[in-house]
Amino acid sequence: MAHLTTLDDLFARKLRHVYDAEQRLTKALPKLEESARSFALKQAIEAHQMETQTHVARLEQLFGILGTKPDADTDDAIKGLINAAGDMAGLHGDDAVRDAAIISAAQEAEHYEIAAYGTLRTWARILGHGEGAQLLERTLEEEKKADQKLTEIAGALNLQAATSHAR
Amino acid sequence: MAHLTTLDDLFARKLRHVYDAEQRLTKALPKLEESARSFALKQAIEAHQMETQTHVARLEQLFGILGTKPDADTDDAIKGLINAAGDMAGLHGDDAVRDAAIISAAQEAEHYEIAAYGTLRTWARILGHGEGAQLLERTLEEEKKADQKLTEIAGALNLQAATSHAR
Repeated sequence: MAHLTTLDDLFARKLRHVYDAEQRLTKALPKLEESARSFALKQAIEAHQMETQTHVARLEQLFGILGTKPDADTDDAIKGLINAAGDMAGLHGDDAVRDAAIISAAQEAEHYEIAAYGTLRTWARILGHGEGAQLLERTLEEEKKADQKLTEIAGALNLQAATSHAR
Repeated sequence: MAHLTTLDDLFARKLRHVYDAEQRLTKALPKLEESARSFALKQAIEAHQMETQTHVARLEQLFGILGTKPDADTDDAIKGLINAAGDMAGLHGDDAVRDAAIISAAQEAEHYEIAAYGTLRTWARILGHGEGAQLLERTLEEEKKADQKLTEIAGALNLQAATSHAR
């Protein structure tokens, strides 16, 4: 069982988890993009792949600010979310239905990241890591925008998916 | 690999996942409450335990509306989130630091549920399950309020946690 005495320890531990999560996402997103059928969804996932690489780089910058080497601890939560997304992407059925399933899983991963970056940003502020808090805030805003983009795409796709059974 | 042809199939599948998630949470929350030290956090987790039982009952009502028996499919995402929460609850260290860790994990689970219920509510509306959509909307609002409550509690606790290393 891990020993953590201070909020600084907890902050560093959480950073290692999110660093693991972002690295796993850089590998998982290309597979999701490949399974997606709608052009808008493929584009959104590709754009988020590039953002995810930026998020990895920002975390490495943050490790630098803290004076430690970038290090990852297995993030069980993102592993579960990525497994669930893989199941959704592997569904057989109507294209629009599978795309709706992919979006639902991707939004769950986004919401997880929104919660994680929200916590990290708050802890960074409290601990006086002003520059770190700004980096985390930028990533947090990008995750929120990625989630909103998926909601927009879902709006059109869900209607297609709903009518698919009538064909 | 599962075969899903319609949005109705996907909706039913997602319901079975969320039903599994809520049942796992009813078992996990008492352990989180036991590990928490702050009275406000213990109270919030206990209140959410009772809400979670209501969420399970609402899902059972929804299965009834759909004319199927309540059934659960393993939800990998919540399994990962609950494992992560268990790790946080088992940390050794300052009480305020562990409570901050518990809140961070609980908020990640809340955000996952907010995303899942948001998707289900939208699909229910599109599929014309008006009463089902209302049930899902009520749960969604309760999940959002539970997340806000945790943010409020974190506000006070994080400051305590930050000063713990100065003691």
